[in-house]
Amino acid sequence: MKNNKLVIVGTMAFDEIITPTAESGKILGGAATYIGLAAAYADADIAAVSVVGEDFPEEHLSLLTNRGIDISGVEQVMGGKSFYWKGKYHTNMNKRDTLDTQLNVLADFNPTVPKKHRDASVVMLGNLDPKVQRKVLDQLTPNPSRTVLLDTMNFWMDLELAALLDVIKEVDVITINDEEAMQLSGQTNLVLAAKAIHKMGPEFVIIKKGEHGALLFYKDQPFFAPALPLENVVDPTGAGDSFAGGLSGYLAAQNTTTAPVIKKGILYGTTAASLCVGAMGTANLVQSSKADFLAQLQKLERLRNISA
Amino acid sequence: MKNNKLVIVGTMAFDEIITPTAESGKILGGAATYIGLAAAYADADIAAVSVVGEDFPEEHLSLLTNRGIDISGVEQVMGGKSFYWKGKYHTNMNKRDTLDTQLNVLADFNPTVPKKHRDASVVMLGNLDPKVQRKVLDQLTPNPSRTVLLDTMNFWMDLELAALLDVIKEVDVITINDEEAMQLSGQTNLVLAAKAIHKMGPEFVIIKKGEHGALLFYKDQPFFAPALPLENVVDPTGAGDSFAGGLSGYLAAQNTTTAPVIKKGILYGTTAASLCVGAMGTANLVQSSKADFLAQLQKLERLRNISA
Repeated sequence: MKNNKLVIVGTMAFDEIITPTAESGKILGGAATYIGLAAAYADADIAAVSVVGEDFPEEHLSLLTNRGIDISGVEQVMGGKSFYWKGKYHTNMNKRDTLDTQLNVLADFNPTVPKKHRDASVVMLGNLDPKVQRKVLDQLTPNPSRTVLLDTMNFWMDLELAALLDVIKEVDVITINDEEAMQLSGQTNLVLAAKAIHKMGPEFVIIKKGEHGALLFYKDQPFFAPALPLENVVDPTGAGDSFAGGLSGYLAAQNTTTAPVIKKGILYGTTAASLCVGAMGTANLVQSSKADFLAQLQKLERLRNISA
Repeated sequence: MKNNKLVIVGTMAFDEIITPTAESGKILGGAATYIGLAAAYADADIAAVSVVGEDFPEEHLSLLTNRGIDISGVEQVMGGKSFYWKGKYHTNMNKRDTLDTQLNVLADFNPTVPKKHRDASVVMLGNLDPKVQRKVLDQLTPNPSRTVLLDTMNFWMDLELAALLDVIKEVDVITINDEEAMQLSGQTNLVLAAKAIHKMGPEFVIIKKGEHGALLFYKDQPFFAPALPLENVVDPTGAGDSFAGGLSGYLAAQNTTTAPVIKKGILYGTTAASLCVGAMGTANLVQSSKADFLAQLQKLERLRNISA
């Protein structure tokens, strides 16, 4: 039942981002947007599942369709307004404050996975309400070689922990940042945190450390992928989603989920994230071609190369 | 003029270390001690240059001589007291406060490099007063293929910047932590900091990021070496010195300083640091055999291995 199909679920939204040096105004955002744009660098057959309001411009949707992403699972609610988030980064860009969140159509989001994608080999549950993530899983048809990935954040640990744990037990690959891994596990050490999260379900635990790279814990063998040192980080928004997108796109294209494939997928995710932060919002992912992506991937491979 | 000779200069001291879970009492410490113990894992011909007081026990010195380290350059001042440092780590072990520093015999330290080591191929200037580091350089006989490494800290940037810069301009390889790289360069970004430090002299700029690994900047090609994820960090004291020791020992043993050799040397340094932090003070370096070291190095290489 192996195929190259990737189902993505996540938000599609308007973001308003304030960094120490710039203000974005109201721009395209949302986990599914970043995941989709990043996943499209690999040769996967991608369907996005999301919800937007009547205010969501056609041009934003066409950014995804131009990359070959099926958006028949993106519901547009007439008379409704799209999810809106406004945030401001601190001086060092490592922390941010949420200034405003308006759920709007997301409040009643009832996801529908397009029929022809229900047998997908790879499912990427982007960061949103775990009850919505669960509804996506429940619509899938059986596929014994399926890989389910999940991204989440502290917000859902605080508000929906039981629902989140109920989804996590179905998950093969979890991506989570270091602080959230400690919160989820109740541990203060990442090795112990990963051990605890393994017991919740995921065989592959990927801990994202931002500029400090990413750690994979699989069985008793950790793997580390560095982040590219960048001269200029313009906007970290969407970096984690881009990571999840690059990784899940690669897994779908490869049609197998072994440790070496996951590791290479982490390099894809890291590459997508490093492109993402180079401009405000999705701008750099939108502008970067597959050739740009592969050139950036090569930089990352040189960063790991010990023999030259 | 290539040889396997390594000259180390640094402190030899008494440390008193308080961690969230333990107090060391008065134990063996000092940069030259950690550097020497770590360097001895490689097949180098090592001489240590330092100063101790009459109170410094023979058993501490024999830890170095047992590893084949020449201590004829370690002056013992009769009637003098050894350098003493007391520090307390914060809960997360990433920060510490100095509670007491007594320079004692270090205040008048006039280093003497043993004659037979003055043509050394590798010189490791451990963290101490840059005027002492300069005196070591001035005693060396010419060796066109020599590699000079320097480790330093913010303390010397605050108090002896001119003297420090005067030494740095003679240095091939600098090891420095991320905050100190930013302080030394006046930059807030590590890529830009490394560029600025290159201009001060060092061709190889190694930025130590503790648990987040180490970044080498060489020409326009960065290299990243991860740190081993550890379940239990007992005491970070000496980790940076151990890194410098593992690196400089490997360089001396290899008898050449190319980018691939420096990179492998960084893995040696990282390995020594990961052993160091596993017990209080020097205990784990003292207890770990060369076989233990190589087993730890293999773990680090597996952490980088993408194909298994």
